[in-house]
Amino acid sequence: MNDRVHLTLDEVHGIASEALRAKGFSERHAGAIADTVTAAERDECTSHGLFRIPFYVKALQAANVSPDAEPTFRDLTPAVLQADSHFGFAPLTLQLAAGPLEKRSREFGIAALCIVNAYNVAALWPEVERLAERGLVAFAFTAALQYVAPAGGTKPVYGTNPMAFAWPRAGRPPLVFDQASSASARGEIQIHLRDGKSIPEGWAIGPDGEPTTDPATGLAGAQLPFGGYKGAAIALMVELLAGALIGDVFSFEATERDAGKVGAPCGGEFMIAIDPARCVGDGNRDAQLAHSEKLFAKILEQDGTRLPSDRRFRARERTPAEGVTIPKSLHDTLREYIDG
Amino acid sequence: MNDRVHLTLDEVHGIASEALRAKGFSERHAGAIADTVTAAERDECTSHGLFRIPFYVKALQAANVSPDAEPTFRDLTPAVLQADSHFGFAPLTLQLAAGPLEKRSREFGIAALCIVNAYNVAALWPEVERLAERGLVAFAFTAALQYVAPAGGTKPVYGTNPMAFAWPRAGRPPLVFDQASSASARGEIQIHLRDGKSIPEGWAIGPDGEPTTDPATGLAGAQLPFGGYKGAAIALMVELLAGALIGDVFSFEATERDAGKVGAPCGGEFMIAIDPARCVGDGNRDAQLAHSEKLFAKILEQDGTRLPSDRRFRARERTPAEGVTIPKSLHDTLREYIDG
Repeated sequence: MNDRVHLTLDEVHGIASEALRAKGFSERHAGAIADTVTAAERDECTSHGLFRIPFYVKALQAANVSPDAEPTFRDLTPAVLQADSHFGFAPLTLQLAAGPLEKRSREFGIAALCIVNAYNVAALWPEVERLAERGLVAFAFTAALQYVAPAGGTKPVYGTNPMAFAWPRAGRPPLVFDQASSASARGEIQIHLRDGKSIPEGWAIGPDGEPTTDPATGLAGAQLPFGGYKGAAIALMVELLAGALIGDVFSFEATERDAGKVGAPCGGEFMIAIDPARCVGDGNRDAQLAHSEKLFAKILEQDGTRLPSDRRFRARERTPAEGVTIPKSLHDTLREYIDG
Repeated sequence: MNDRVHLTLDEVHGIASEALRAKGFSERHAGAIADTVTAAERDECTSHGLFRIPFYVKALQAANVSPDAEPTFRDLTPAVLQADSHFGFAPLTLQLAAGPLEKRSREFGIAALCIVNAYNVAALWPEVERLAERGLVAFAFTAALQYVAPAGGTKPVYGTNPMAFAWPRAGRPPLVFDQASSASARGEIQIHLRDGKSIPEGWAIGPDGEPTTDPATGLAGAQLPFGGYKGAAIALMVELLAGALIGDVFSFEATERDAGKVGAPCGGEFMIAIDPARCVGDGNRDAQLAHSEKLFAKILEQDGTRLPSDRRFRARERTPAEGVTIPKSLHDTLREYIDG
């Protein structure tokens, strides 16, 4: 294990925010990004942990990204909030928007957040989990760069287009899923490439349209949607929600605009928050949450089942005490950012 | 073709509503159900066409279903509308709710409809398509009876749990998908059983938990989610939205309550309607729809691609002039309902 470095979660946050600030991010942006990176390391989501910091730094060096833009907000209706990230990264906007989105969903039962002009390379579960911890049901959708072939096609059009959903639970972390509408997250293929491993069949096709298990060939070709045409329909829905619905770009337009410079998608994110207590006549949230626990118990009484995100939540019980390890090469890169 | 009977769409509607009224449905319920059945025949969605009428009739004979309940409505918030079907079938409620849901989504940008105590054996695309024809973006979610195994499990817990989505298009039918979160719709397996055909691998497992291609064994065992754990996560989300969120039952509870009597699910349906023009600063819906057409063109420029529901819309161009054919045995059954 000499090729790995041990870090406490505080150290993860410290090295992330220091590295980001050393490379030019404002204190507020560095803090918000470090929060999401630390949450990912805490939950052992390696591909969204410190592994991501070089992506943020390289994006900034490509000069289209703002290191310090303060998000601005505008009420489009009493229940629809628009947030403009002004070409900064999304985490700061998402942190600032959570309170206002919660307030609107409590008042109207349902509310939407339309984030535009945001660079986003993070997972979506932090933002839906944050709302579910406040007792809300939450959805998030975002597009990316053109990576994924449409149903029946061989060339990329869609992004990996994740969709996240969270449901509150009493006295424990929410039920959360955050899944790419591609067969795998792009980060998973990047990790396979880094580790010199082949990828499973069904994840990608090469530039020639033929199936491939080579991660580099798959990254150069097209990823495939999960579950055939049904996953492709989800990918298409996400494009529309994070693009035309809120007046931002589709994945293929983000790719054209980026022209290979940043390599991180700049576009929109659409969120819906629902107050469950406003969706029943008696407003009894406790009864709703108790009811949902019956479903979870019914699932878990079968051998071999687990709920989405259980693996993350189990990691979360260990890592605050035990810390995490990252590759020494990654640690060296981050130290170089800091020490110049 | 002597084993098939030719009908115009008017004749489809006539025989459907006559059969339903002869078996005790009120004029309004018979009309609303006949509308959805006729729309399905028009679009050559056989499994939701006249094939469904015996399901409605048998459900009514089992006596738990109301043949004439008038839906009632209640505003839970200015943007969340509750509809109680009072144990009637869903189509009448959905027809009556469309206008109020449209009004609320135009005012607040986003609005929700929570339908409770509804029997539902119809497709979901008619209700999302109806809203998209009015320029709205729409989602619908409903649970069913326990048919589908959770991820990692072998016994049914979830319903087939369809999720439908529609996006408006200028001067043509909306973009619509309506897909079960199971690998196949239950109706597709029923059609295979009726026609004496085996089902594809991956659709179902038998009561012993082993994969099967026999439709009867699959119907007795468990259907499988589409796309593995990701499709199962969608199924779980749909359970929560159509169940605990709106104060109605989960699929396994609908099954317990039914106790094999009706064989049609009674529960909730959750819909979200969004006015796209309220999700952009300039309110320019025409620009949003023109933008979405660029995405559709980008998809369709690849050989082998098509948009969801294209097959339905192509059928729709033919069937108003050409009519449809149904099996003579089905026609005989419907005539028996009418003639006693």
